[in-house]
Amino acid sequence: CDLTGWWENDLGSRMHVLEVDSEGNFSGEYHTAVSSADKPIQPSPLVGSQHLDKDGQCTFGFTVNWKKFSDSTAVFVGQCFTGDNGDEVLQTSWLLREKVDSLPSDWKATR
Amino acid sequence: CDLTGWWENDLGSRMHVLEVDSEGNFSGEYHTAVSSADKPIQPSPLVGSQHLDKDGQCTFGFTVNWKKFSDSTAVFVGQCFTGDNGDEVLQTSWLLREKVDSLPSDWKATR
Amino acid sequence: CDLTGWWENDLGSRMHVLEVDSEGNFSGEYHTAVSSADKPIQPSPLVGSQHLDKDGQCTFGFTVNWKKFSDSTAVFVGQCFTGDNGDEVLQTSWLLREKVDSLPSDWKATR
Amino acid sequence: CDLTGWWENDLGSRMHVLEVDSEGNFSGEYHTAVSSADKPIQPSPLVGSQHLDKDGQCTFGFTVNWKKFSDSTAVFVGQCFTGDNGDEVLQTSWLLREKVDSLPSDWKATR
Repeated sequence: CDLTGWWENDLGSRMHVLEVDSEGNFSGEYHTAVSSADKPIQPSPLVGSQHLDKDGQCTFGFTVNWKKFSDSTAVFVGQCFTGDNGDEVLQTSWLLREKVDSLPSDWKATR
Repeated sequence: CDLTGWWENDLGSRMHVLEVDSEGNFSGEYHTAVSSADKPIQPSPLVGSQHLDKDGQCTFGFTVNWKKFSDSTAVFVGQCFTGDNGDEVLQTSWLLREKVDSLPSDWKATR
Repeated sequence: CDLTGWWENDLGSRMHVLEVDSEGNFSGEYHTAVSSADKPIQPSPLVGSQHLDKDGQCTFGFTVNWKKFSDSTAVFVGQCFTGDNGDEVLQTSWLLREKVDSLPSDWKATR
Repeated sequence: CDLTGWWENDLGSRMHVLEVDSEGNFSGEYHTAVSSADKPIQPSPLVGSQHLDKDGQCTFGFTVNWKKFSDSTAVFVGQCFTGDNGDEVLQTSWLLREKVDSLPSDWKATR
């Protein structure tokens, strides 16, 4: 698969991948629909990498830096599939790292 | 903190971050000490992003594309801390996405 | 909420909770629809605990011991909600621990 | 392995397993060293299950109900190993479910 373009998930978050280069690297913007920050949500830059397997079922990962409204960072990892109706579907999992103020608080920093 | 340079974890995996640009983006290589693939391990490219907070406790994330020996992708997310001895310490969590052959197998694809 | 009864998830796995005692403890059986084991799937015993909050949105957790066909163990944690149609809905996350043969393989044991 | 007895982790949390029955089920108390609740920490009841493999490397899981000071629930899953010095070592992973007030907040409820 080629991740270039717009993708939307069940919660209404949208991802825009600008271009995938010949190494599989890409950048883009993530428009999250959900946030635990108090500031207004803004589009956030993402950088990532995908495999370039010919079977259209490649795995990929990317990092979102919420720098405009939060000091957290999120990573997503997933795989492309072709759904029953022929559309490409992305299955992803994520981890969100929240900033904590000291090492003893580290245990609770990852959602 | 500035992630530029070499980092090593408890298991002996090493990460080399080449340079962090003014947006916090970086690239580098990940030399993993562990693998479930049958092929020989080779250094794998990574791309990621970090916050540029002045307090040295920024959060960061990056993607490792194991393309030279596996069709999996891993993402790491974490935070810098200053350890008791004054050294910088990285606390990270990770997810590994393995390629599965169909959507019904998706449940087991993420470690 | 009271977890007593039958529950089914999107993948077709079913859970039967026999009775929740006054402490919130319960036991039952889990009929998984998916497995990475080679042996035939069989109902597996579960034990767990739930909060007894009056608002019907309690959190809960339980352990499934796949002893009849696997040496793995799974844990589930989640919360009850009332869906748009008035039905009770369970939102859960899980971890699966696979048996590995030595400490250096520990990194890959949890899905 | 037999989980009966006291166990302590790196952060100073301690677990007391009272007795493992012939099915592998057990109950006990968990004395956590860390908490994000405002109330004083108190010993919390746990229930779980372990495999009874003869090789001493069994997997296990258990649920901790923090009912005395929190409406959260945690689950732990892991495996016994024998360390270099002959002592039994437990490797565990955990998920913490925090109570959220509605389904749209579900995404952030699990650490």
